[in-house]
Amino acid sequence: MYWAPFNLIMHNMGKINKEGHLLMTTKEHSDVMHQYNYYFRHMNPNQSTPYSYQPYHFNNEYYTNTTQNGLIDQNDLYFRQHILTFVLIHGSWADPTFWNGIAGELRKMGHIVHTPQLPGHGTDKNKNVTHAMITQSVVEYITTQNLKNIILVGHSFGGSVIQKVAEQLPDRIKRLVFWNAFILKDGESMADQFPPQGQQFILGLAQQSPDHSIKLPFSYFREVFVNLADLQTAQQIYNSTTPEPSAPLTEKLDLKAFYQLTIPRSFINLLEDTAIPAGETYGWYPHMASRLGIFRFIQGHGDHMTTAKLQPRKVAHLIVNAGRD
Amino acid sequence: MYWAPFNLIMHNMGKINKEGHLLMTTKEHSDVMHQYNYYFRHMNPNQSTPYSYQPYHFNNEYYTNTTQNGLIDQNDLYFRQHILTFVLIHGSWADPTFWNGIAGELRKMGHIVHTPQLPGHGTDKNKNVTHAMITQSVVEYITTQNLKNIILVGHSFGGSVIQKVAEQLPDRIKRLVFWNAFILKDGESMADQFPPQGQQFILGLAQQSPDHSIKLPFSYFREVFVNLADLQTAQQIYNSTTPEPSAPLTEKLDLKAFYQLTIPRSFINLLEDTAIPAGETYGWYPHMASRLGIFRFIQGHGDHMTTAKLQPRKVAHLIVNAGRD
Amino acid sequence: MYWAPFNLIMHNMGKINKEGHLLMTTKEHSDVMHQYNYYFRHMNPNQSTPYSYQPYHFNNEYYTNTTQNGLIDQNDLYFRQHILTFVLIHGSWADPTFWNGIAGELRKMGHIVHTPQLPGHGTDKNKNVTHAMITQSVVEYITTQNLKNIILVGHSFGGSVIQKVAEQLPDRIKRLVFWNAFILKDGESMADQFPPQGQQFILGLAQQSPDHSIKLPFSYFREVFVNLADLQTAQQIYNSTTPEPSAPLTEKLDLKAFYQLTIPRSFINLLEDTAIPAGETYGWYPHMASRLGIFRFIQGHGDHMTTAKLQPRKVAHLIVNAGRD
Repeated sequence: MYWAPFNLIMHNMGKINKEGHLLMTTKEHSDVMHQYNYYFRHMNPNQSTPYSYQPYHFNNEYYTNTTQNGLIDQNDLYFRQHILTFVLIHGSWADPTFWNGIAGELRKMGHIVHTPQLPGHGTDKNKNVTHAMITQSVVEYITTQNLKNIILVGHSFGGSVIQKVAEQLPDRIKRLVFWNAFILKDGESMADQFPPQGQQFILGLAQQSPDHSIKLPFSYFREVFVNLADLQTAQQIYNSTTPEPSAPLTEKLDLKAFYQLTIPRSFINLLEDTAIPAGETYGWYPHMASRLGIFRFIQGHGDHMTTAKLQPRKVAHLIVNAGRD
Repeated sequence: MYWAPFNLIMHNMGKINKEGHLLMTTKEHSDVMHQYNYYFRHMNPNQSTPYSYQPYHFNNEYYTNTTQNGLIDQNDLYFRQHILTFVLIHGSWADPTFWNGIAGELRKMGHIVHTPQLPGHGTDKNKNVTHAMITQSVVEYITTQNLKNIILVGHSFGGSVIQKVAEQLPDRIKRLVFWNAFILKDGESMADQFPPQGQQFILGLAQQSPDHSIKLPFSYFREVFVNLADLQTAQQIYNSTTPEPSAPLTEKLDLKAFYQLTIPRSFINLLEDTAIPAGETYGWYPHMASRLGIFRFIQGHGDHMTTAKLQPRKVAHLIVNAGRD
Repeated sequence: MYWAPFNLIMHNMGKINKEGHLLMTTKEHSDVMHQYNYYFRHMNPNQSTPYSYQPYHFNNEYYTNTTQNGLIDQNDLYFRQHILTFVLIHGSWADPTFWNGIAGELRKMGHIVHTPQLPGHGTDKNKNVTHAMITQSVVEYITTQNLKNIILVGHSFGGSVIQKVAEQLPDRIKRLVFWNAFILKDGESMADQFPPQGQQFILGLAQQSPDHSIKLPFSYFREVFVNLADLQTAQQIYNSTTPEPSAPLTEKLDLKAFYQLTIPRSFINLLEDTAIPAGETYGWYPHMASRLGIFRFIQGHGDHMTTAKLQPRKVAHLIVNAGRD
């Protein structure tokens, strides 16, 4: 209804095919958005006045304007105004399938999405890996494919990986996005950021395993990683995890170069994420996030691994809000 | 619409009466849910694949699918997948009527709900009670009715009660749920967890009263306990309170046995609850909650006493999320 | 639908004109609300029973009941039950246009709204101002217009202004509302509440300017003040700012009298506001808010300057919740 004129413009331009996909170049899309903004939102995009507010796309609230044939979601149009290249780095116990729902939503918005698999994770059964090997694999992924101007997103353990990748490829990275992610100080290991009992518990599990990998017991995983899930979903997510190599969690990282970088950075916090419990001297936010200095803060409701599965669209919107210019 | 097939299955089975109530045993219900999941959510409940996400029931967002005759709310069906037995323990100044809305919602979902009245509260005018007497009354309630496998929920002061009840009846309790509730360390009293001025204020009120009970002034109650209410609602809730016996708030509790228990536990935090103000060395979350060790964290928006009255369905969903397997 | 009877009562009383505006005195409106409450919400406003809950107006969730002719928003009726007089004090880099959307929404609800411009801000190009001059201008605004019984709202820097105004005009102020606002201790300056690096950064900017005013670089403003905005909105808000006089930010304020006042007070916290970053020894909530002693806490999602522009209705509701009796 509110959006009808926009549809109309595009239909008249012959730019929507019968599957409802947009058929236009980035330039054309940008042009039509300017035209649309000018006429229908009473806003000249080149001036700051007159001002007209647009509550439909704000924060966590998105209006779904189903068209008669149900083919176009106008919010997707909004979120593809700037086409971004995302490289999404998964966390511990996870693999690229963690991003399936989210990557799908980002692509529907028109963005380009890469989800490399880290060594020692997913289909890679060799758990004898180091943090440097993991970093190197991401660096090679990016350079081999010659990716530039990327939004490099790290979830959980992936935060420490994008810290190290950024040191090597600062010129290819447009922005770093840490999503409930480890941000280590120079000389720290991941384990240094666990609360004391957690540290003991996790590292104790590593010692029990022949290859020093860590398989979390379901009872722990269910309470701490997927607290918002129903049991069935919790079990499905748990069954999709693989044992985590322990060496990268305990290695002290040299991060002097990282703290010299000026790449813009964002932090996404899901308010019910307890993978690292909140405390005075540990926790995602503000403890870990504050190490970023000046950063853009994006926040929503969700836990460590359920929200990615059950609300991928919501997380994708948060990632766009964190990654856009 | 999305749920229509589920309705259909049950109608065909003759399992919905004309009031829209489900007429089936737990076993039958479980069977039909499996059947439903398999056919219509493309999900075999006995396997972890194929995965299909179900955004309708997640977190605080619930879709209401009104049927043509308006008799069935499908979310209720979802939330009754596992029938739970709740024992709900009210807090200070409150009585079992505090739970009226919430208990009604839980029962609509098919759960079994008990809301015992604590000595010195509600219709019990004798304020000369101890914490041990209160604990004992709950223990007797549970054993007399031979309740087993219960989800024991404590709100506010009720948190300290379920700590003590759990010490005596560990085998009858499936899970402890603390909802903005006191979790005392061994040797602490409730008053030890008030901020200094609050302590002085509350205990000063006790000294002014012949039976050492505490009647909060409305001006304080309105700001701190029902901050989200309109004035009319604030007055109604205030008028429903009775003076609180002070002895149980100041007694130091022996909780050594509690800290040996391994019963699973959850913490529900309403983000605008200021009954205990947030601070560095006090407050509901993370200060008090972190004493639980490993726990499931559930969170939503709300204050100390308004949300229970005005949004009982929302609180009931949080309690189910906290209590389910 | 739910509200239809209320419409009906008023139509029958001839109290809605064809533009859909209410034509009634405050007394008449109060009467009809009582009548409405009694008959249709099964609630006698003069008694606490029978209790009936009213989920439609709670917290951040508002139902919009569009009537057939679209003229009446029933939520506005609810929020005008008590007509309040608001004086809204803007913050640094801002001016009265900051309040445009919010003031419009408050007026639609029937409230009276004043938005004085502070010296050194907006159209006032003279940056040579002191905190005392700013306070004095607000005091004169209120006394000249003989405003009484006001809800005095301060946003950001405006918090320190309403602290000082309250010292001079305690009898004219019904309630103080601090919205992500500075609440200084006796002898403190605003700059004392910045984190160390922020302090250096902001004051460094002042030294670079001939009139010691502070113009924030866009890259900083965009990340920290309008983190939730899209780029276009961020630029529009940035373009509407003017350089901030630095003297009022660095002056130590005598606030002994403020801490003797007993005027009721509220604190509104937007959860994604990072204008002052969250930390252990600084930040809006709980750090600054806790200085208010007993206060009413209202909270929602939003950042420092975007939410006022894009969701003025939502902020207006929070302000009413903070300001009402």
